[in-house]
Amino acid sequence: MSGKKKLKKARRKIEKLKGKLKARADVAPAKKPTIVSPLAPKSGFPKLPTIDGVRFATASAGVKYKDRTDVMLVELAEGSVIAGAFTRSATRAAPVLDCEAKLGRAATGGAVILVNAGNANAFTGQAGQTSVDAISSEVARIMGVGQGRVFTSSTGVIGQPLPHDRIIARLDELKAALSPETIASAAAAIMTTDTFPKGAAAEYEAEGGVIRIAGFAKGSGMIAPDMATMLVYIFTDAKISQKTLQAMVSKCVDRTFNRITVDSDTSTSDSLLVAATRRSAAAEVGDMRSASGKRFYEALESVMLDLAHQVVRDGEGATKFVEVRVTGADTDADANKVAMAIANSPLVKTAIAGEDPNWGRIVMAVGKSGARADRDRLSISFGDIVVAEKGWVSPGYTEESGAAYMKQEDLLINVDLGLGGGTAVVWTCDLTNRYIEINADYRS
Amino acid sequence: MSGKKKLKKARRKIEKLKGKLKARADVAPAKKPTIVSPLAPKSGFPKLPTIDGVRFATASAGVKYKDRTDVMLVELAEGSVIAGAFTRSATRAAPVLDCEAKLGRAATGGAVILVNAGNANAFTGQAGQTSVDAISSEVARIMGVGQGRVFTSSTGVIGQPLPHDRIIARLDELKAALSPETIASAAAAIMTTDTFPKGAAAEYEAEGGVIRIAGFAKGSGMIAPDMATMLVYIFTDAKISQKTLQAMVSKCVDRTFNRITVDSDTSTSDSLLVAATRRSAAAEVGDMRSASGKRFYEALESVMLDLAHQVVRDGEGATKFVEVRVTGADTDADANKVAMAIANSPLVKTAIAGEDPNWGRIVMAVGKSGARADRDRLSISFGDIVVAEKGWVSPGYTEESGAAYMKQEDLLINVDLGLGGGTAVVWTCDLTNRYIEINADYRS
Repeated sequence: MSGKKKLKKARRKIEKLKGKLKARADVAPAKKPTIVSPLAPKSGFPKLPTIDGVRFATASAGVKYKDRTDVMLVELAEGSVIAGAFTRSATRAAPVLDCEAKLGRAATGGAVILVNAGNANAFTGQAGQTSVDAISSEVARIMGVGQGRVFTSSTGVIGQPLPHDRIIARLDELKAALSPETIASAAAAIMTTDTFPKGAAAEYEAEGGVIRIAGFAKGSGMIAPDMATMLVYIFTDAKISQKTLQAMVSKCVDRTFNRITVDSDTSTSDSLLVAATRRSAAAEVGDMRSASGKRFYEALESVMLDLAHQVVRDGEGATKFVEVRVTGADTDADANKVAMAIANSPLVKTAIAGEDPNWGRIVMAVGKSGARADRDRLSISFGDIVVAEKGWVSPGYTEESGAAYMKQEDLLINVDLGLGGGTAVVWTCDLTNRYIEINADYRS
Repeated sequence: MSGKKKLKKARRKIEKLKGKLKARADVAPAKKPTIVSPLAPKSGFPKLPTIDGVRFATASAGVKYKDRTDVMLVELAEGSVIAGAFTRSATRAAPVLDCEAKLGRAATGGAVILVNAGNANAFTGQAGQTSVDAISSEVARIMGVGQGRVFTSSTGVIGQPLPHDRIIARLDELKAALSPETIASAAAAIMTTDTFPKGAAAEYEAEGGVIRIAGFAKGSGMIAPDMATMLVYIFTDAKISQKTLQAMVSKCVDRTFNRITVDSDTSTSDSLLVAATRRSAAAEVGDMRSASGKRFYEALESVMLDLAHQVVRDGEGATKFVEVRVTGADTDADANKVAMAIANSPLVKTAIAGEDPNWGRIVMAVGKSGARADRDRLSISFGDIVVAEKGWVSPGYTEESGAAYMKQEDLLINVDLGLGGGTAVVWTCDLTNRYIEINADYRS
């Protein structure tokens, strides 16, 4: 063969191989899973206001993770009041039981919150409380607060003893690093399968001065009411009594964190703490019947709702953020049953992942929910698109319009039961292969 | 560049492309999913006994599927009695409502069961009953039975009108094809996402003659109590009253089909019919207090349990068959809550898929179940391997032994709550990528 012919042949071979490579690319996985959830806020972690009387520090204790911060300490100034809400799981972790007990006591003074990621200190028998006590007493000694004012949380793997010595070894370093400005680092230090840190804030002019609220959360899987696998810490400088704050927190939680579900699984470690340093120049916040109380409640709820939504947006493997609104139920409780049945249905969630407007599965979920429903009064819409009404597909509905709607990142599913005045809204995400991948191999 | 150099360059290019192609092959999907569930009975569809007075026929009506049978007709001889059980979904499909109404009437005579796959005739408004009536009246006319003795079921997509004319067009062909020997073809004709047909039988010597029971089921996804997306048809030649048969069927269902879950989603179409032709030479079967009644009940339950297990073994994407046994609960109801919470937990099911002995997730599921539990009395074992006891990991447990156990195809998870005498057992499968694939794109 001549050199020219050989060259020609080689070039044909190149074209052929290029073609094969291209064909192969079409069947190969599109790309490695993104590091950050596609639903993460596009603007990144928000700029949060500094809350007078709150300082943060983080450290790398190597509890489980290497090469990252995994312990966070928050110092709350003298005079702070603290309220909270916790998982109702019957197998609550030791730190949860400890926090609940401490919040129940009317202790005052400064306070400290210490959180580790990587190990949940859950189902660790008597060793669980031993670890909590070991950490709490050392924190109390080093930080100069009563042991009853040290609140700890742990998040991560269940059933392994917490290597609390590794955390205690970092306490001096944590104390030295305290700063009012490092809330973003604190939010990052408590992440487990989270793909982004979650922060939210509110700030408003009240009588006599500005009131500021800033907080952060972690949570991604094992998310379902009550409370989800979630740790949430919110700080405010408002002058508010512990009693009023607790009442507001309990109400807020029911309208925010108890309204989200990623996978219907409830954690043993869910904890939410809200601390008020009472350092704002603004006048004392009244209870929920007062104007100042209402205003503060509104701001607090907006922060909690923002964080709750961010948890869903970081749902393991999530590619869609879904609001499920149910109206026309016999009661609010019935509406909630229907909304949760839809939001937790693997068949609904996989259809959403596939951008399939499979409203039949919504009918199925309504039917299984246990709420009273009448097939012939039921209507369903995707956003503004009426899909089904009076027990059947709507005359104006087309699969094309439904399919086009499902391509959006944020979806709204409306279900009206046509029976009474009961309503509910919950937020969830879709169920994808990535969820399986994350959870089939979490520990290894 | 010289010809030689160009050739050399081209050859280097070829090698580079070949390398790329090879690398790409490594990341490409390993292979197409298997056609048949890996958990399918290795022996294939069983040889079922002929039941005197029962004949089967199948046809391809093209309701949705092409190139396969999708309609099945069963003729039951004069004198047959029929019992049933149905989904309790509030959005039950038209054929379900129709069957329930007909079973409630004390009609006698021959009977016909007609089933189609591909379209569930569910949530089709008034058109649903119109289709059922159209089919029933034509079947009654052609087969010479009362319309009140024609029982129909439909399984498949929800919300699309059933093209009943396509089914009616095949009725003469179905009648002509009737045979007592073609039960296996009937089992295959009603499959949707099933990967194998499911049959089971029992046969025993009773006083005066042999009693035979043979039946089949379909079901793969949308499987949860009550009843799962399941169609089940069981036939016997036993002489038994409708009342006794119904009592036995209701009890059996609670111990078999209501004890399985694939994905916690409950269908709008679940139907089970048991027909007795009363043609056996054996003496009349008494009620459940009699010896003959107990014997028959036992045989019937064994057939139902076998079919129920096969449905789980064909769970969409299943690679593991899991029995969850709960003991030591305050009540049976509490035990059931715990067993179902474990069996339905996406985190437990994905861990099983990953062969990860992640017993912490079982603790989580116990905690969220709503049943009373005491962390420090809880014990968990995988088969005979004690994993956790008294609120913590068992001293003798090793991750290696747990991991080795999880590699088995059939798994047993035991949970003892250490509180009382309540027990429950349920069967489920794991949750894999394949489930997502099947369900993210079922309709297209």
